[in-house]
Amino acid sequence: MGDKFVKTGIKGLDKMLGGGIPEGNIVVVSGGTGTGKSTFGMQFLEEGIKHNDETGLFVSFEERKKPTLRHMAELGLNIKKLEEEKRLIFIEFPVSELEQLFEQEDAIKTMVQTMDVKRVVIDPITPFALLYESELERRQALLKFISKVREWGTTTVLIAEDGEFKEKDIPRSISGIESIADGFIHLSFKLDGWKRRRGMEIIKMRRCQFEEKIHDINITKKGIEALNYKKEKKGKKRFKKEGYL
Amino acid sequence: MGDKFVKTGIKGLDKMLGGGIPEGNIVVVSGGTGTGKSTFGMQFLEEGIKHNDETGLFVSFEERKKPTLRHMAELGLNIKKLEEEKRLIFIEFPVSELEQLFEQEDAIKTMVQTMDVKRVVIDPITPFALLYESELERRQALLKFISKVREWGTTTVLIAEDGEFKEKDIPRSISGIESIADGFIHLSFKLDGWKRRRGMEIIKMRRCQFEEKIHDINITKKGIEALNYKKEKKGKKRFKKEGYL
Amino acid sequence: MGDKFVKTGIKGLDKMLGGGIPEGNIVVVSGGTGTGKSTFGMQFLEEGIKHNDETGLFVSFEERKKPTLRHMAELGLNIKKLEEEKRLIFIEFPVSELEQLFEQEDAIKTMVQTMDVKRVVIDPITPFALLYESELERRQALLKFISKVREWGTTTVLIAEDGEFKEKDIPRSISGIESIADGFIHLSFKLDGWKRRRGMEIIKMRRCQFEEKIHDINITKKGIEALNYKKEKKGKKRFKKEGYL
Amino acid sequence: MGDKFVKTGIKGLDKMLGGGIPEGNIVVVSGGTGTGKSTFGMQFLEEGIKHNDETGLFVSFEERKKPTLRHMAELGLNIKKLEEEKRLIFIEFPVSELEQLFEQEDAIKTMVQTMDVKRVVIDPITPFALLYESELERRQALLKFISKVREWGTTTVLIAEDGEFKEKDIPRSISGIESIADGFIHLSFKLDGWKRRRGMEIIKMRRCQFEEKIHDINITKKGIEALNYKKEKKGKKRFKKEGYL
Amino acid sequence: MGDKFVKTGIKGLDKMLGGGIPEGNIVVVSGGTGTGKSTFGMQFLEEGIKHNDETGLFVSFEERKKPTLRHMAELGLNIKKLEEEKRLIFIEFPVSELEQLFEQEDAIKTMVQTMDVKRVVIDPITPFALLYESELERRQALLKFISKVREWGTTTVLIAEDGEFKEKDIPRSISGIESIADGFIHLSFKLDGWKRRRGMEIIKMRRCQFEEKIHDINITKKGIEALNYKKEKKGKKRFKKEGYL
Amino acid sequence: MGDKFVKTGIKGLDKMLGGGIPEGNIVVVSGGTGTGKSTFGMQFLEEGIKHNDETGLFVSFEERKKPTLRHMAELGLNIKKLEEEKRLIFIEFPVSELEQLFEQEDAIKTMVQTMDVKRVVIDPITPFALLYESELERRQALLKFISKVREWGTTTVLIAEDGEFKEKDIPRSISGIESIADGFIHLSFKLDGWKRRRGMEIIKMRRCQFEEKIHDINITKKGIEALNYKKEKKGKKRFKKEGYL
Repeated sequence: MGDKFVKTGIKGLDKMLGGGIPEGNIVVVSGGTGTGKSTFGMQFLEEGIKHNDETGLFVSFEERKKPTLRHMAELGLNIKKLEEEKRLIFIEFPVSELEQLFEQEDAIKTMVQTMDVKRVVIDPITPFALLYESELERRQALLKFISKVREWGTTTVLIAEDGEFKEKDIPRSISGIESIADGFIHLSFKLDGWKRRRGMEIIKMRRCQFEEKIHDINITKKGIEALNYKKEKKGKKRFKKEGYL
Repeated sequence: MGDKFVKTGIKGLDKMLGGGIPEGNIVVVSGGTGTGKSTFGMQFLEEGIKHNDETGLFVSFEERKKPTLRHMAELGLNIKKLEEEKRLIFIEFPVSELEQLFEQEDAIKTMVQTMDVKRVVIDPITPFALLYESELERRQALLKFISKVREWGTTTVLIAEDGEFKEKDIPRSISGIESIADGFIHLSFKLDGWKRRRGMEIIKMRRCQFEEKIHDINITKKGIEALNYKKEKKGKKRFKKEGYL
Repeated sequence: MGDKFVKTGIKGLDKMLGGGIPEGNIVVVSGGTGTGKSTFGMQFLEEGIKHNDETGLFVSFEERKKPTLRHMAELGLNIKKLEEEKRLIFIEFPVSELEQLFEQEDAIKTMVQTMDVKRVVIDPITPFALLYESELERRQALLKFISKVREWGTTTVLIAEDGEFKEKDIPRSISGIESIADGFIHLSFKLDGWKRRRGMEIIKMRRCQFEEKIHDINITKKGIEALNYKKEKKGKKRFKKEGYL
Repeated sequence: MGDKFVKTGIKGLDKMLGGGIPEGNIVVVSGGTGTGKSTFGMQFLEEGIKHNDETGLFVSFEERKKPTLRHMAELGLNIKKLEEEKRLIFIEFPVSELEQLFEQEDAIKTMVQTMDVKRVVIDPITPFALLYESELERRQALLKFISKVREWGTTTVLIAEDGEFKEKDIPRSISGIESIADGFIHLSFKLDGWKRRRGMEIIKMRRCQFEEKIHDINITKKGIEALNYKKEKKGKKRFKKEGYL
Repeated sequence: MGDKFVKTGIKGLDKMLGGGIPEGNIVVVSGGTGTGKSTFGMQFLEEGIKHNDETGLFVSFEERKKPTLRHMAELGLNIKKLEEEKRLIFIEFPVSELEQLFEQEDAIKTMVQTMDVKRVVIDPITPFALLYESELERRQALLKFISKVREWGTTTVLIAEDGEFKEKDIPRSISGIESIADGFIHLSFKLDGWKRRRGMEIIKMRRCQFEEKIHDINITKKGIEALNYKKEKKGKKRFKKEGYL
Repeated sequence: MGDKFVKTGIKGLDKMLGGGIPEGNIVVVSGGTGTGKSTFGMQFLEEGIKHNDETGLFVSFEERKKPTLRHMAELGLNIKKLEEEKRLIFIEFPVSELEQLFEQEDAIKTMVQTMDVKRVVIDPITPFALLYESELERRQALLKFISKVREWGTTTVLIAEDGEFKEKDIPRSISGIESIADGFIHLSFKLDGWKRRRGMEIIKMRRCQFEEKIHDINITKKGIEALNYKKEKKGKKRFKKEGYL
């Protein structure tokens, strides 16, 4: 596998993925309130900006610029400086103007090419799904959208909110976009007695080998980190440990 | 973390939060009937009025002035005196006039600035969510609302009612506003055999470290208080104990 | 707590409540078919009529006068005599004329003042909730209604039917009116193997201390009575025993 | 309790009820497919015809005359003879003509008075409930109907089909009519491993004392019979054994 | 019980029923995908054709002639020969022409009389149920249909698909027609750990005695067969073993 | 059983099926996100192309050509070469033009005949099901579609997404097409504690004998493979092991 991997900035996750997210993959990250999904997106951009000197692009389908920048500042980024140096770009893209995105040379594509953007985070993708009343229309729009994102050539994280699914089943986002994306990472926060336990699970990741389980994670002021990752690798393995999808 | 913390007035909760609610945070408090969510809001205002000599602002999207003041009197506040001294202000804001709130200089903002209000409680926020038929419209209105509240500069508690969620999942309010607020505290009252057990759980709190568990609470005539808080800190800890989101 | 308490006539319940229902409280009593909720309302009126020489007012939003009076007679009341002496008044109030109730001097208020009524039972409150298609309208009507009832100055029992709720959750009535009432008592009749077990639980009661548990009850020809109430008070207490909400 | 009781013809049930169904009661019998609810109604009529020399009236809101008579013949009744002697009357009453039933002197009332009918079975009552789109209208029509049935002065069994309810909850019929009837008997047929177990439970019965449990029953060619009824009465009783509602 | 029984051709089932299906009964067979319900119908016809030299009539409310005949050939029937000899008749009856069926002398009735048909299989009955939007209309149409089928005088198997029902409850088909049929046999295929277990259960069968349990079955190239039927009869019996409904 | 079997290319599955999929069968493969259902389809085509020198036809009702070819390349196929040699054909068939498919000589039939195609994969079939609002129309269209596919004479795999079903029940796809197909294979990915376990289950397969259980599978860069298949055959067998449907 001669793939290039893009480091996520999430402690432990790159090891789980055997190096990082395969370059160019479009990855859905979903979870409920307080599971750290926005933090995931920010750490992903931060990793590129801080350690690889990349330009990071943050797109939102909702008016979220201010709270997002404030949140990123809390994670230790010098937002003001980064914006002045054009290393962090924030675009609010109202869903009402979504059609624009489907043109040949859309604004984001132009920006990606001009600024040599390698990483994009779209947070949240949810309003996109809520635009369509018919399931069929939504599926078609999502396919068109994913195909558009692929043109950008970036490694892209799409932040989604959890839809309905049963406890032992495969998680689903409201958008359902994970079924056509290259990867799907799910963040959970389950009650176990009167305690809660945070988890991160790779449900699918094209061109990757990964353990098929929920990993314990922690969220501190430095962001998300996987726990005991090494230890787990030595533990007894009841089921097979690798997926390739 | 150089944050200033605002004391909640809930015995034990400030310790759980590492000092209180970070100043300026917008915090959703949700729960079912009889879980003490209105009491939470009142204690929060009372704390500012009694111990910090602040002016407290109580906003309701429903006609609830009379029963609320009566309830506060039962918690030991001299309502009449406080109203005369203008240290407690009660506004009934019918949802039908909500558009007014979205103007540049809305009535509440003016009041907050004139009276130097530090704490606001909105009880309940629910009618706001019921105004919109489309999920997309509701999300956009809630974002606009949160951004409006942020302009006030106050530390704000939004009282919400529980929506649908599964037993081990993350709680949800009817409004769903917790997904864009800075904090989310959930109050529960679960049957355990033929007894009930009251709980308070911090689901998220920006710029705070907190234990990820349901804390036992009690409600007496003095209001809500967390139980055995110290003891718990010494107990064995199966999972990590701190969140930062 | 200098409150005056109104005896319920339900054996054991007054002790549970520390004396009775605080005077002036509006209390929702809900349950499924056969749980004894109508019996509860009748015992409450009977207590006032028989032992305190009060006038009792029974209001129904449905045509239920005949079966109700027959049911009360079975509980041992001399209905005919009481009606002649005007100590028991029965009003059928069709929901189609509900607007009348919201006038300044409504018929019930007039009657309450003229006859010096201390206790009112409304059985059932359900049709009121079914009148409104929108959740928002219903909430507003219920608030207006509760505020109207408060004007009467009576201690009032509202009989409701159970809505949907999960097994360990807080009970809900179809009307949802319990969220704005002063008290909420729930009657249950749960299957335990192939036997059923009757229960009565105080979910909330303003200005009262109460045990937060389901109490075993029995229904005999004399009405509802709580079982083993004293014994329970001496038993080991795993959770806190008192609520104040 | 000076009540007169009407024997049900179901072996064991009369003992459970302390003698039978109190004369004049309107009793709902509900259950799923194959639980024996129609058989219950037929045995009830048969008991009156065979042992008390009464005239039995069978009313259906659906076209069911032929299969019902055939079913009754299988239970051992000489249908032809009984019809000739006018001791068994069968009326098909299409729901489209229901309004007729609400007139002062409806056809059934006339028949009941002329033929001195003591027992009526209506099987099924379900189409009645399906006529109304609004819950409020249905409730009002059901109240009107019950009050009409009461005018007849008969002891009446209404056969209903099960609606939705949770496993440990109180059963509900599709019609919901049990909430305003005098009695409610539920027939069940639950899977226990790979076996099924038939049960009969008295949920409510005005002016009666009854055990609050599911009784094992059997259905043979002679109809329904309760099993081990005597034995059970001597067994240890974990919960109270009598209801009076 | 002087009834004549019709052999089903399902190994073991005739014993379970005490001889077979009582002649003239209308029996619903329902189940999910892959439970063998179509196979059941085919075996039933085959039994009559092969061993009793009867003419078998197969009716479908959908275009299913070709796959059905192919399936029957796989079960070992010489379809071509049987069709030529007019011992197997296949009718596709589009639901759009259903009204025709309700005429006095419908095509099927004529065929049944002319060809002396004793057994009819209708597979599937489901489209019939999907024709009606209102529950009330559907019930009335189903009653009319069953009464029509009864005119034919045949022993009839109606193949249905499972509707919604809870795990321990009585099975339901989408059509609900079992509530008015003479018999109801349910086929299941339940997960038990990571294995599946096939089952056949007689839920009701007029004029029959049957064990009230799920019987283990197997499906081989010869069709459905009940397992260990004799053995079970000798095993210990926790519940009563016979039903008569 | 003189059937010819078509090898699936899934390691272990052919053994489970007693040789492969019976030639000409139409088989539905369904599962959730990340269960490997698309990989299944690709391996099925690859097997024919690589080892049997066949021409493979891939049809999609959505715009999925690019990502599908990329995915196939990752599984080791030299896509470019195969497309040039016309051994792999990819058709995007928008559901809006579905009517075309129902003509006598549709485009796919022509291609199948001209190129001597033996295997067809349709991925996904889901949009087809979403086209119809009424359940009845959908059923009729699916029957017409299956009958069309049968004309092609190919062995065909239809990839579907999971619909709603309960944990121990028979799986269902959104389309429900499995009820009229010849085979149904379900792929699962269930949580077991904090690990996931992949499974493959043959629910039905006309003219085949198969074990009625969920088989453990693994997904590696070579695709899906069943685990421990031989071992399992020797293990103790609690239930019967063979189905024939």
